[in-house]
Amino acid sequence: MNSGIYRSRLGKPLDKEAAKFLSSIRDDSEIFLEDILGDEAHSIMLYEQGIIEREDLKKILKALEEIKAEWLRGEINLKVDGFEDVHEFIESLLIDRVGVEVGGKLHTGRSRNDQVALDIRLKVRKYLLEIWNELIDLMEIILTRAEEEKDTPLILYTHLQHAQIGSLSHYLLALFDHLLRDLERIEDCYKRVNKSPLGASAIGGSILPLNRVRVAELLGFEGVVENSIDAVSSRDFALESLSASSILMTFLSRVSEDLIVWSSSEFGYIELPDELASPSSIMPHKKNPCLLELIRAKAGKICGLLTASLMELKGIPIGYNRDLQEQKSLIFQGLKETLDILKIFSKIMKGVEFKTERMLEIISGSYAPAIDLAENLVKYLRISIREAHMIVGEIVKEFAEKGLKLKDLNQDTMKDVARKVLGKELDIPNNVLEIIRDPSKIPSKRVSMGAPNPRDVSRMIEDRKNILKEKKKILKNILKTLEEREEMLSKTIKSFIEDDLASH
Amino acid sequence: MNSGIYRSRLGKPLDKEAAKFLSSIRDDSEIFLEDILGDEAHSIMLYEQGIIEREDLKKILKALEEIKAEWLRGEINLKVDGFEDVHEFIESLLIDRVGVEVGGKLHTGRSRNDQVALDIRLKVRKYLLEIWNELIDLMEIILTRAEEEKDTPLILYTHLQHAQIGSLSHYLLALFDHLLRDLERIEDCYKRVNKSPLGASAIGGSILPLNRVRVAELLGFEGVVENSIDAVSSRDFALESLSASSILMTFLSRVSEDLIVWSSSEFGYIELPDELASPSSIMPHKKNPCLLELIRAKAGKICGLLTASLMELKGIPIGYNRDLQEQKSLIFQGLKETLDILKIFSKIMKGVEFKTERMLEIISGSYAPAIDLAENLVKYLRISIREAHMIVGEIVKEFAEKGLKLKDLNQDTMKDVARKVLGKELDIPNNVLEIIRDPSKIPSKRVSMGAPNPRDVSRMIEDRKNILKEKKKILKNILKTLEEREEMLSKTIKSFIEDDLASH
Amino acid sequence: MNSGIYRSRLGKPLDKEAAKFLSSIRDDSEIFLEDILGDEAHSIMLYEQGIIEREDLKKILKALEEIKAEWLRGEINLKVDGFEDVHEFIESLLIDRVGVEVGGKLHTGRSRNDQVALDIRLKVRKYLLEIWNELIDLMEIILTRAEEEKDTPLILYTHLQHAQIGSLSHYLLALFDHLLRDLERIEDCYKRVNKSPLGASAIGGSILPLNRVRVAELLGFEGVVENSIDAVSSRDFALESLSASSILMTFLSRVSEDLIVWSSSEFGYIELPDELASPSSIMPHKKNPCLLELIRAKAGKICGLLTASLMELKGIPIGYNRDLQEQKSLIFQGLKETLDILKIFSKIMKGVEFKTERMLEIISGSYAPAIDLAENLVKYLRISIREAHMIVGEIVKEFAEKGLKLKDLNQDTMKDVARKVLGKELDIPNNVLEIIRDPSKIPSKRVSMGAPNPRDVSRMIEDRKNILKEKKKILKNILKTLEEREEMLSKTIKSFIEDDLASH
Amino acid sequence: MNSGIYRSRLGKPLDKEAAKFLSSIRDDSEIFLEDILGDEAHSIMLYEQGIIEREDLKKILKALEEIKAEWLRGEINLKVDGFEDVHEFIESLLIDRVGVEVGGKLHTGRSRNDQVALDIRLKVRKYLLEIWNELIDLMEIILTRAEEEKDTPLILYTHLQHAQIGSLSHYLLALFDHLLRDLERIEDCYKRVNKSPLGASAIGGSILPLNRVRVAELLGFEGVVENSIDAVSSRDFALESLSASSILMTFLSRVSEDLIVWSSSEFGYIELPDELASPSSIMPHKKNPCLLELIRAKAGKICGLLTASLMELKGIPIGYNRDLQEQKSLIFQGLKETLDILKIFSKIMKGVEFKTERMLEIISGSYAPAIDLAENLVKYLRISIREAHMIVGEIVKEFAEKGLKLKDLNQDTMKDVARKVLGKELDIPNNVLEIIRDPSKIPSKRVSMGAPNPRDVSRMIEDRKNILKEKKKILKNILKTLEEREEMLSKTIKSFIEDDLASH
Repeated sequence: MNSGIYRSRLGKPLDKEAAKFLSSIRDDSEIFLEDILGDEAHSIMLYEQGIIEREDLKKILKALEEIKAEWLRGEINLKVDGFEDVHEFIESLLIDRVGVEVGGKLHTGRSRNDQVALDIRLKVRKYLLEIWNELIDLMEIILTRAEEEKDTPLILYTHLQHAQIGSLSHYLLALFDHLLRDLERIEDCYKRVNKSPLGASAIGGSILPLNRVRVAELLGFEGVVENSIDAVSSRDFALESLSASSILMTFLSRVSEDLIVWSSSEFGYIELPDELASPSSIMPHKKNPCLLELIRAKAGKICGLLTASLMELKGIPIGYNRDLQEQKSLIFQGLKETLDILKIFSKIMKGVEFKTERMLEIISGSYAPAIDLAENLVKYLRISIREAHMIVGEIVKEFAEKGLKLKDLNQDTMKDVARKVLGKELDIPNNVLEIIRDPSKIPSKRVSMGAPNPRDVSRMIEDRKNILKEKKKILKNILKTLEEREEMLSKTIKSFIEDDLASH
Repeated sequence: MNSGIYRSRLGKPLDKEAAKFLSSIRDDSEIFLEDILGDEAHSIMLYEQGIIEREDLKKILKALEEIKAEWLRGEINLKVDGFEDVHEFIESLLIDRVGVEVGGKLHTGRSRNDQVALDIRLKVRKYLLEIWNELIDLMEIILTRAEEEKDTPLILYTHLQHAQIGSLSHYLLALFDHLLRDLERIEDCYKRVNKSPLGASAIGGSILPLNRVRVAELLGFEGVVENSIDAVSSRDFALESLSASSILMTFLSRVSEDLIVWSSSEFGYIELPDELASPSSIMPHKKNPCLLELIRAKAGKICGLLTASLMELKGIPIGYNRDLQEQKSLIFQGLKETLDILKIFSKIMKGVEFKTERMLEIISGSYAPAIDLAENLVKYLRISIREAHMIVGEIVKEFAEKGLKLKDLNQDTMKDVARKVLGKELDIPNNVLEIIRDPSKIPSKRVSMGAPNPRDVSRMIEDRKNILKEKKKILKNILKTLEEREEMLSKTIKSFIEDDLASH
Repeated sequence: MNSGIYRSRLGKPLDKEAAKFLSSIRDDSEIFLEDILGDEAHSIMLYEQGIIEREDLKKILKALEEIKAEWLRGEINLKVDGFEDVHEFIESLLIDRVGVEVGGKLHTGRSRNDQVALDIRLKVRKYLLEIWNELIDLMEIILTRAEEEKDTPLILYTHLQHAQIGSLSHYLLALFDHLLRDLERIEDCYKRVNKSPLGASAIGGSILPLNRVRVAELLGFEGVVENSIDAVSSRDFALESLSASSILMTFLSRVSEDLIVWSSSEFGYIELPDELASPSSIMPHKKNPCLLELIRAKAGKICGLLTASLMELKGIPIGYNRDLQEQKSLIFQGLKETLDILKIFSKIMKGVEFKTERMLEIISGSYAPAIDLAENLVKYLRISIREAHMIVGEIVKEFAEKGLKLKDLNQDTMKDVARKVLGKELDIPNNVLEIIRDPSKIPSKRVSMGAPNPRDVSRMIEDRKNILKEKKKILKNILKTLEEREEMLSKTIKSFIEDDLASH
Repeated sequence: MNSGIYRSRLGKPLDKEAAKFLSSIRDDSEIFLEDILGDEAHSIMLYEQGIIEREDLKKILKALEEIKAEWLRGEINLKVDGFEDVHEFIESLLIDRVGVEVGGKLHTGRSRNDQVALDIRLKVRKYLLEIWNELIDLMEIILTRAEEEKDTPLILYTHLQHAQIGSLSHYLLALFDHLLRDLERIEDCYKRVNKSPLGASAIGGSILPLNRVRVAELLGFEGVVENSIDAVSSRDFALESLSASSILMTFLSRVSEDLIVWSSSEFGYIELPDELASPSSIMPHKKNPCLLELIRAKAGKICGLLTASLMELKGIPIGYNRDLQEQKSLIFQGLKETLDILKIFSKIMKGVEFKTERMLEIISGSYAPAIDLAENLVKYLRISIREAHMIVGEIVKEFAEKGLKLKDLNQDTMKDVARKVLGKELDIPNNVLEIIRDPSKIPSKRVSMGAPNPRDVSRMIEDRKNILKEKKKILKNILKTLEEREEMLSKTIKSFIEDDLASH
């Protein structure tokens, strides 16, 4: 089989080292099947439009199905020299099998420019749907854990310092709500990805009567990227998918950071199951949260791939430029990593053990109830929060110096401090101090919407269950439509091939 | 007026240099008005919920309105030392005017954490709407130019080499279609931005009966960011807005590159009006496309701001961390630059002169019709495109060596070449060669959807006009709703203040 | 005073909005003085080469000195409309004062392209020297603290898990050694920055007999950037300075992370002085490490500025392009932030209180001595480390389950475990277990070079003191040379001006 | 062979999916040989220090040499499941062959933390030397071409507009000078890379008497990374190598942009040899500069890898964290791409055909001599450059409107224009206009240092030849030293193994 089938004008074959540098074929295993899919839909349309003969179509489809089967059986080695890409390789395979007079018709009205745009869209579409699915899985696991931990109080941190007493369930719901927006971004992006560029040819369309809508239909797209320049030149849809991934992964890096800090022996809030932890080669006592560290790091990698992708596009002319080849593999790599991370993250969220006793222990010694105490002063004494803040701030300062705990505060001390900082006599009713006696009860006192009050948390869990159900349904419908289209294409192919078998 | 009103617990004032390093107040002029808006809505709600007295509310609103008026008259200097941020500054101003017993109530049930999240959302919302509006303006200008240039043929380039003959109008429509998706991304992002975080307090809500939905309504939001941790911790909405900007700006850098190349004397496709060009300090003959170069560069800057924003968030704990302060100004800077660039770009697209004669001149000497010629071989001889490619490729090779033009090709030469490369005798009907005789007519021969055929281009222009009308309507409705809410809030404020005046 | 002095060829003034967009004048206050310095050196050379008259030189220098004085007194407002940059502004000021026939000679043999390259180099040089100086300060503080804490044991962490017992002093020395390499990078970069581009003119030099070496000498440079294209086109020196900053800042973000984690109440290793900590507006008990969080975040910002700078250069033509203007302010911003961060970081390292008792407390309950115990088995029993690892690993596993401490281990248990995991009878001499009895003594047992052994630490401290002394000397010499050259230039200027005064 | 040899403490094997996610083994083929080198040097030192027996050393070395040989023959498949990395894999292989009692001694006094730091340094060292070598090759080619084109005038562009007339040789020398600084950066970085971290153990050194200096010597390092924390924790050396690459590649992206623009038919300055150009699959006439486009794009990729590397390090604790594993492969990838690009770029610079006639043709119609004309007015009339600029600017404006060429200018027109714009009568001597009569002679009139004057260009070529010679010598010496050390290690190994053979 010969490479170089496109070099009609060029006098010499491509320099060997240059060919190796230029070729994307090593990365193109990602889109081998997508390329064949596109070939098949395109050639069916060519026949339907009267551009090629039925007999040619049959031969082409038969050969393509064989090539696909060989590929799936691992019989085709892509690491071949001399081919610029998978498009040239498959066309060459085809021509090798059915001759240039028939096989040479596959590429009618098509260029590698619209072809590769198609393959990328098919592949990004696939990744987005898989990410979508994994996100739903992860959200489901988080919801389950949130339901289990409804009664687990937890210090909420700001600046890694004790802020307010909350609950683990409420913390988990915060993760859920962010992931829900990540899911929405994937959905929004999907709309812009799921359009067919095929039929744009090199950049300016064709004088042949191509039916672009028909090809789109056969491949499960919702419409075409209409303008032919736009179709071959634009990669905004790919950048958008990587942006959505980067935002998602940056968020997961933050959750990972929390879990890494929580798994330190000083915090001791969680323990990873042994099968998700790593040892040291030299320190016999080690149990390291390596998976979480890798996720944290990979957020950096994915954002770096986004940077690279943006930078590769920056300042290049409109139209197809070879720069776009280089971007292709970055996008796939970023989406694939995202998918892998989501799977591992789900495993961790499912398996992690929450050490609720330790969480309680930390709460019992914390000054975090100070804010609730200050708000109680507002509530019962109707003084301003700024005054309440001054009183409680002074108390914490004195207690911290003396090593006292907040729950040991009594009315007299509070009156003394109020006199000192405000110059006022305050009457402190008993119920003001009640709140600091049992810090673990504080969440149930919070009445603002979306706070860790167990009643509100329960309501939010139910609400999120319904949202998730809805999101699952949407995904299911999309997958169903795609399956139907795939089946339709598959049947159409079979009908042409079998017709061929029958007539011989 | 004293700074340091929050330092109840801390024994010493903030170190002076540290204060300067820490303070965001120099950047906070961006959100001065947003902060007051939030203050007003919040304090009205506090009164409505029975948390503060009507008399207090009046004083607070009156003072805030005064501060706002002074700010708008430029009487307030934000470059003050000692304040950590605009939140502390405005609260201090208020306390200074109405005393800590009243002014100190403003911050009831609120923290700077939810407050700054509110301000950012209000500001990002404003920027998105302005960008939205500018995008529509730019698209309108492009559409007008596309209509003017319907009959202007233009070489379409891939790899900066002549690819196919197209039309200027079709090229401009490609820009339109990309910008339309950019607009959609802004719309999608807006949904996630336009939610109120207020009422989340520090991170875990409040024991006071705050009405979060009411505050959201007064400020024109569509709902709240429910979970209190999520409300203060998440910045995905800001990252998303900057991602959308980065994708848009990367695209504009590509259009700018085209225009810079086109303005070279070697291409000579465009001339910038003198008022949009720059001279040299030493070279008297220069007329430089500096605006376009800056736009190209600023794409790099905005993507760098996105990188910085992602990196600042990467690996920090969930919850509010001071890292988020640093990110705030990057987001605003990125969105502001985007807005400025769009305005300048519109001006350029409106003012640029297209040198259509030069475009024609280049076409007349181009080998770009080669593809149409090859497709004509497919159409009339029904040979494969691969064979046609070989024939025409060989012709171009020979012609290029001899310095011949494609339009000089005749049937005999073609037959000779076909014999040579395919070993076949081909009968070349006359109409095969017709297409290369007048290259400027080629676009009208392209019949695939979305190609530069003038008929299809006209259809697409009409279609895009309708789309743009629709998009304008959506924006108008949003702006109207926001105005109504603003008016409602304004009236509510006035009713409380006037009531105060009446009662004295 | 008129702007637009360069628009000889262009028929219309620059559009007002475009001028605002285009102008760098708001950022150019950074290089106002540098620009005048360059003007002065350049005009002296012009006279010395016989290109301008002595009388012209006098007038030019006198006016420039006046402008400089006014600038330093804050009498010149750069926020003026209509000027593209500080170069045009200062030349216009000059012409306004001494007329176009004299003032118009300043720009002889020069272009803004080489002029701005000069200004950037002068400014980057200044920043590098300041960073250099701050680095030395910080390293000195770290060394002082390291000396104070020579006897403070500290858990060393890997994966945020207890790894080995080390010492605080040794930890601080690790910071020193990294910063030393950061310093070297600044030094290396400085060599490439400190060269004069002036005399390259627009891009191709001049037909006038400029003396480039003389200008370089007057401005304190070590030589010229010889090739004129290279001189105006290249910005590698600026990228390199920002790379060095990014690497340094990424490192400081890691140290900051450690200190933030250490300041959590769960770790409790450090306490920030009140004057370097921040409160909460609502939580009266808070003491937040905001400075450290900002430093961590600003690492992201600086790396983002590097990304932006690289991206702005990517793919633009060789030669001066306006894209370079946009990059200029990013570089300055990045270096300025680096400088500010170093100052604050020094303050923190100086002021932070190390809670050595807490460090000891954590050590006493840690399994970190496991590695030393395993190495003792190797040392005394000469079994393989892999076998020792298995024994001690099993011990930790059992002890952790039972809640036992490592120091409670006895010979019998060890023998039992050895039998269990290796199937061998081991004779455990008493001195094997000695090491785990007092974990705080472990560092003194480590004998490999560069380990936290107090003797080795002392040696390294002395060694680093000498290195620092050397580094100070190098910097001092550079500063001295620059001062001498400045003085020389200043005297030369005065001699021409006074000559002028004398003659009237 | 069993994996999991480090899991002494952990009750369960690593989850299978987690293992796949965690494992770096697929990337580790990069450092297989480096890892064995380190093993060998380390075990020799262990014996020399009396830590292991001579008999053990022999067995270990023999087995390692066998493993190395098998690897080189391709008999070892790294794509194995269950191993976390190449370190565990090779140790397991060893134990499998010589038993845990002997093989288990290899890891004495060592951790994967210092081991992987060693491997990275060995590999980065190798890449830097190769890049160094390729840079020298490229610079040599450029110098050769510069010598060939000494008499080829070329328009120099700023803003992609004609700026000044220069020469191709001078342009090529500008590339050389930039690359020389790139080379210096590699040299500077090399100093910091070429140090041994081995002997730092996990993070805090060892109680065993390791000889770190000896290991460094055996491996060709210039000294050790002394502080044990620094040795395992720091990656600044790797970031620096990638920064240097990014700066270099950003520069090459600019040169590529020039060449891409020059290869457009509108410019027509260069033609790529057919064996370095690419065709289109559908457009028979195409000859695309794909290699250059890929280089331009890959600059974006490498900068993105730098961003990713910085981001992965940002904010992680000091000490070894698994995040560092993720960074490792990014560094290698970036350096490898840099190397490949340099090779291809050399090929292009060697093969590209410069179309000097076209360069001359463009010059003949250019207004670029305007600057020389203005300077001539300064020179002969001693008017100010600002006045000269106004005169010539007006001339160009009028000529451009009328379509006239600058060389057609006569004295009368010039006098008229001078009168018009300056209101002065100027006497224009004949020699003022001489310079514009033959634009190709202009470079020879430029007398400022570093300008495209052929005499100066010749001098610079000779000078650069000497510099290159010097640089070659430095590299040669380094390579020689490394070879000697390698040989020394190799002999030492052999002596131990053969001794073993003799004694049996």
